[in-house]
Amino acid sequence: MRFCRYRRANGQLGEGIERDGSIVPLEQLDSTLPPHLRDWMTLGEALPERLAKLDSAAAIEEPVRLLAPVPHPEKIICVGLNYRDHAIETGAVPPTEPVIFSKLSSTIVGPDDPIILPQLSDRVDFEAELVVVLGSTCRDVEEAEAMQHVFGYCCGHDVSARDWQKEHCGGQWLMGKSFDTFAPLGPYVVHKSLVPEPGNLAIEMRIGDEVMQRSRTNELIFSIPTLISFLSKIVTLRPGDLIFTGTPAGVGAARTPPRFLQPGDHCQVTIESLGTLRNRCVAHDSAEAEQWRKATA
Amino acid sequence: MRFCRYRRANGQLGEGIERDGSIVPLEQLDSTLPPHLRDWMTLGEALPERLAKLDSAAAIEEPVRLLAPVPHPEKIICVGLNYRDHAIETGAVPPTEPVIFSKLSSTIVGPDDPIILPQLSDRVDFEAELVVVLGSTCRDVEEAEAMQHVFGYCCGHDVSARDWQKEHCGGQWLMGKSFDTFAPLGPYVVHKSLVPEPGNLAIEMRIGDEVMQRSRTNELIFSIPTLISFLSKIVTLRPGDLIFTGTPAGVGAARTPPRFLQPGDHCQVTIESLGTLRNRCVAHDSAEAEQWRKATA
Repeated sequence: MRFCRYRRANGQLGEGIERDGSIVPLEQLDSTLPPHLRDWMTLGEALPERLAKLDSAAAIEEPVRLLAPVPHPEKIICVGLNYRDHAIETGAVPPTEPVIFSKLSSTIVGPDDPIILPQLSDRVDFEAELVVVLGSTCRDVEEAEAMQHVFGYCCGHDVSARDWQKEHCGGQWLMGKSFDTFAPLGPYVVHKSLVPEPGNLAIEMRIGDEVMQRSRTNELIFSIPTLISFLSKIVTLRPGDLIFTGTPAGVGAARTPPRFLQPGDHCQVTIESLGTLRNRCVAHDSAEAEQWRKATA
Repeated sequence: MRFCRYRRANGQLGEGIERDGSIVPLEQLDSTLPPHLRDWMTLGEALPERLAKLDSAAAIEEPVRLLAPVPHPEKIICVGLNYRDHAIETGAVPPTEPVIFSKLSSTIVGPDDPIILPQLSDRVDFEAELVVVLGSTCRDVEEAEAMQHVFGYCCGHDVSARDWQKEHCGGQWLMGKSFDTFAPLGPYVVHKSLVPEPGNLAIEMRIGDEVMQRSRTNELIFSIPTLISFLSKIVTLRPGDLIFTGTPAGVGAARTPPRFLQPGDHCQVTIESLGTLRNRCVAHDSAEAEQWRKATA
């Protein structure tokens, strides 16, 4: 029950479930449902039972390439300074209420897509994050009921241009967080039934061979149910909405000397039970950046 | 060429063009295009000519209710402190670079929908705004080319919970700007061919009979082409994206005594050439709020 989107050999998009390293397309598993993750989300709590009964002989398919598992969320809601150690390293007082900001949903890219380092910034930083994928519409829910509205989890990378986050646009973080390609996501959305303890997962960011961030999600200041409850009292949360839950200590801006992303850096976000999300940084005027822009024009 | 979305007598959604107070459904005008504004946007600069040739005898339809003309934009990008007089009234130094923030796209409601005053805030303020609707994908455009990427314009209301904007969520404005129903939009998207001078339109907010804001868009610190060019160097802009261009002086928080929105307040945003957007404020526990929540659950 690791859901993915992928490019097929014929160029078309597919959605499926990863099984033993290959993919079973959703339409092969159950022809009574539309072959889209959004529709499967509507099964809610009945999904694991239904999945257990699915056709075990369904044909598999080799993807040409995995894509971002949730490409067009209505909302990306992000939590700042939500690991104790990271709040301290930035010099901030650990917050008493969630710090909330957004990334524009045009930022999302998939596994192995390039992170384009923009011409306008020379302080692009890395942030490994656990991402919560909502599964149902919810408003004004209490913490005790919050987790029933989760569909699953994935790895996310909250790429951040620190100069634009802090020194431009009037102190609002949005644009520094929203350059194109600044929200790698994937490789899968792992259904919550496979993640019994989302509040206690190992999380790590490597650049090349070097571990830059290593923590556990039990260091979160505001837990997943606390965040969902808090947010749901302000906005209606909907299936496919993403919550980037914050990043642990070790970001580049807090290092001595600072360590910002450079062309050629291989970033790897690994979260226990969720896999590894890999993206390589490229210069804004590189052939890879140009290729990405052409493909998404 | 005033585009709208509406509820039909049979309950279904329609999209059409306003003509003499009635609506001509898009499918009546041209059966060779899908009946959605998004598809009509792709006609680009050829749209006015094509519209001139359309069936003048096409059947009209009486809408039961107008809806938000752009319901699910990929992005809502908002500009803060962008009228000289408003920047001064808030005590801010007029910005030398656009102040950029976002409203979550779940905030959008249509003409005559309620503005629900949330239980969590007692400082909900009004902001009349000219909204630019993008018509084509653009990246890294110069000011001289920016206006060709505009599809049209509409009235917007950037409802703002000042306490949440300023005193919660770590100083990030997002949540104070993103309570449900905080982005009324409409009544129409007026094609740019009908708005020859978007940089010189009268703009007004009335509450009941009282004029609270009255200015012209030539008071904008950062003009529409400047904003589009600036934003397009950071993010890819796409058809249907919205830019809320800022609000003039007269907001409730800057008045002595402050004048915040109360249940029963009738808000009217009127912009020259674009019509009037009307929304009534209701209490969070009112029957109207409950009805809205049921209809959008």
